[in-house]
Amino acid sequence: MNLHQVARLMAGFAAFFTVAQLPALVMALLETHDAPLTPVFGFVVSIAFGAVVAVGLWLFGRRGDPHVYRREAIAVAGLSWFLAGLLGAVPFFGSGLLPDAADAWFETVSGLTTCGATVLGSGPNQAIDATPGSLLLWRAMLQWIGGIGIVLVFVTLLPAMGVTAKNLLSSESVGVGTDSYQPRAIEKARAVTRIYVGMTAACTLLLVLLGGFSWFDATCHAFTTMATGGYSTRGSLREFDSLGGELVLTVFMFLAGASLAVLATHSRTGLRCVKRLLQSAEFRIYSLCAALLVAALSLALWRAGLPFGEALRQASFNGVSVMTSTGYATADFQAWPATATLLLFLSMFVGGCSGSTAGGFKMVRLLVCVRLLGYTLRHFVRPKSVERIKLDDEVLPAAVISSILAIVLMWGMTVVLGALCVSLDDRMNFVSSLATSASMVGSCGPALTIVEPTSAAQVLVAGGTAEVLGHTPNLGPFGGFGELHGWTKIVLTVQMVLGRLELLTVLALFSPQFWRR
Amino acid sequence: MNLHQVARLMAGFAAFFTVAQLPALVMALLETHDAPLTPVFGFVVSIAFGAVVAVGLWLFGRRGDPHVYRREAIAVAGLSWFLAGLLGAVPFFGSGLLPDAADAWFETVSGLTTCGATVLGSGPNQAIDATPGSLLLWRAMLQWIGGIGIVLVFVTLLPAMGVTAKNLLSSESVGVGTDSYQPRAIEKARAVTRIYVGMTAACTLLLVLLGGFSWFDATCHAFTTMATGGYSTRGSLREFDSLGGELVLTVFMFLAGASLAVLATHSRTGLRCVKRLLQSAEFRIYSLCAALLVAALSLALWRAGLPFGEALRQASFNGVSVMTSTGYATADFQAWPATATLLLFLSMFVGGCSGSTAGGFKMVRLLVCVRLLGYTLRHFVRPKSVERIKLDDEVLPAAVISSILAIVLMWGMTVVLGALCVSLDDRMNFVSSLATSASMVGSCGPALTIVEPTSAAQVLVAGGTAEVLGHTPNLGPFGGFGELHGWTKIVLTVQMVLGRLELLTVLALFSPQFWRR
Repeated sequence: MNLHQVARLMAGFAAFFTVAQLPALVMALLETHDAPLTPVFGFVVSIAFGAVVAVGLWLFGRRGDPHVYRREAIAVAGLSWFLAGLLGAVPFFGSGLLPDAADAWFETVSGLTTCGATVLGSGPNQAIDATPGSLLLWRAMLQWIGGIGIVLVFVTLLPAMGVTAKNLLSSESVGVGTDSYQPRAIEKARAVTRIYVGMTAACTLLLVLLGGFSWFDATCHAFTTMATGGYSTRGSLREFDSLGGELVLTVFMFLAGASLAVLATHSRTGLRCVKRLLQSAEFRIYSLCAALLVAALSLALWRAGLPFGEALRQASFNGVSVMTSTGYATADFQAWPATATLLLFLSMFVGGCSGSTAGGFKMVRLLVCVRLLGYTLRHFVRPKSVERIKLDDEVLPAAVISSILAIVLMWGMTVVLGALCVSLDDRMNFVSSLATSASMVGSCGPALTIVEPTSAAQVLVAGGTAEVLGHTPNLGPFGGFGELHGWTKIVLTVQMVLGRLELLTVLALFSPQFWRR
Repeated sequence: MNLHQVARLMAGFAAFFTVAQLPALVMALLETHDAPLTPVFGFVVSIAFGAVVAVGLWLFGRRGDPHVYRREAIAVAGLSWFLAGLLGAVPFFGSGLLPDAADAWFETVSGLTTCGATVLGSGPNQAIDATPGSLLLWRAMLQWIGGIGIVLVFVTLLPAMGVTAKNLLSSESVGVGTDSYQPRAIEKARAVTRIYVGMTAACTLLLVLLGGFSWFDATCHAFTTMATGGYSTRGSLREFDSLGGELVLTVFMFLAGASLAVLATHSRTGLRCVKRLLQSAEFRIYSLCAALLVAALSLALWRAGLPFGEALRQASFNGVSVMTSTGYATADFQAWPATATLLLFLSMFVGGCSGSTAGGFKMVRLLVCVRLLGYTLRHFVRPKSVERIKLDDEVLPAAVISSILAIVLMWGMTVVLGALCVSLDDRMNFVSSLATSASMVGSCGPALTIVEPTSAAQVLVAGGTAEVLGHTPNLGPFGGFGELHGWTKIVLTVQMVLGRLELLTVLALFSPQFWRR
């Protein structure tokens, strides 16, 4: 392991992360805020700290071998998330918004991984509505940076190093194994960034025009929508009560969960890249799942007594939000009927498309699983038939299939082991442990808990926040993670990073073999 | 498909099943019973009906090609379960014990598949304690027959036809692809039967001697223990309040969940077959999982306030019972802490060893999954390393690994789709849908529901049955499935058969391709 080179790359990353805080600092200087909070102080300390770290890492790394190899790329991809969690937490901690270090760390990692679980408004922490704009902007920026970051890591850094070709099936969309990877990787990174920024701008504009959002709200929501992050500037999206806004957000959440990578790969062909996206098998199963989910949720809500229009509205916004791992909510969906909560729970596992900002184990892996199951059954019925599993007209080799299945299984095990850890907190129950774990690994944000049946029935029809059963903290869409123990929060942040980097990259960091020689 | 030959084999099966009712008929003739119930009538009608079906099938099948091929074997294995469900239900229906046909069908299929979920004592049905002995004996015999049946199907019938070699990894333990399969298969079937009968006798004797059970209770419990079925002659095992009995049952449940197939394969070597069993990788992970489960459950119960001895007693009996998919209970384990209920829920998926009467997707598949995950991580860290996944010193080919993973994934999907179906019943919730589905597919029997937190805390320490939240029926160890809708019961029985035959055999029956030509 070339630690010098790792440090040098991390130095660049820390420098960028420090500069990124300047807009929030400017906003903090311009706004007035309540006495106990000191956002300006927080950002100044944070920028100074970030600068020191960046310089330190650069000094350590400047003399190393300038070549980056596979393992260095993995180390940078994995460690950046932890370093960013540290650097990004300083404003929350320094400003006094989150005086508990575990809270500040949780909020930052949750932002960067585009998970979107928040500690604000629960436990000892103040509500989102009372938080200064500069800190809200920083929260949204964390997600926006984390969102583009993960796409760049998976679309350019790791594939260029030959890391994820097998696991992400991106052999078509990236230049693997060629000597000319660097120019192509840089070109792709530029294209991804262009599309990401362009769509964010479009989302902002439409939120202002159609949703009636203020420019500040629109910008923050565009940031967290394109990142499929889910941090809002209010307690919940319901407070805006804007059908136009919900429609715009639903469309952009859906687009953000589709593959940016495919668009970027074919960006030279202009609008034809959209055609390529629509033709890809992953996008098709993604659209199909979204349509089925919204239909099933609508029916379940309608059957439970909501008027059909309202059922459709709630189902499409909250369904797409959970499925794309965004995590916005206009309804306390914990109170929904069992079929609906089960569907939302399952959606947390799969997430969106590969090469997008969405979490989960990705639609392409679901597609391969479904095809394998069909193949297995057909092969069982007619063992002599010769058939191969294909994806977008390419035959998948057995090694690729088994590595894909391994990720899906590992995902299940990570969720289950995480749920067991979380359940050690006495106040957690079966549902809240399992759903929290799935939500963190899948970068969704809100979890599910058990609500009082009578309260659930009322809330379903009349709206509001359902009453949680027993002493369990409300970890649902209208709740927060502030009440949890510090160690539980640390466990959850590890799960977020694990899920965000699709397990292997992070698990490798914990393997002694990885660091040897 | 050679339907004549299928019918001929089913005729033999129906005849055996009819003769098997004679002991219960004798018992019905000897005992006295309450007025409205007519067990003698039920058994006489049932035996007559069974004889007619057997003769009819034989007449249809007698002229066919006498050769059995792969597809015929699969068809017989799959259809027998449904036919047996029909034939076995007549005594319950005809005697008036279960006047609802769906209930009688549910109880019978649940018995045959060694699931052990019961409708007695819930809904309109009378309690187990008030049920005539002849019908209790028939319930226990259904499980005993189903238990040996499944082992014979998986150890002799299907492997002899080359069906499951790949999926069950039994290449070592069965003679595949040789012309001499029939003598070997018959020899193995005899050895399995000898061991099964011998262990049942030993269990009966020990239950009488150490447990203080009556001969009738001991026989019935030995039947349902060796089958890992879980039907009891009382409402719950707690009523016996016998530490000796619990110990004997725990040991025999554990033995029944270990591979009978390995013992039978090496039965010629006398007691050395036990050594071969102890050396097998599957048995080792099975023992390890059992030890870990009991330890974790004990700690969880102890932490929740039980004295350690009591915690260990409850954890070992109920833990081994759920893990081996038996389903006996001495505690209402729905009321246990979240960690414990999560562990029990997970145990329902895995079950015991392949070639045993236990349900679940089997320990050997868990072992292969765990090895694959380790391999994937090591391969990610050092992509150039050459390594192969082995099991008992044999290298597993990629096709075998991917078919094993396919079964595990298919298992997950079956549970999840089943849970969605079950959740359409309005009274079901997130936990009860998911756990019922897992319990049925895993042949466990009792499910989990959400209980009132205060009631749970009391029951945990003081014993008794916890109060269920809302209008959900109590599907836990001290509840029953009688309150469910008829269609829900049908769905659950399909799930039982699916899980019992490890999915593919049953799914094939629903595939038009299978029946063609």
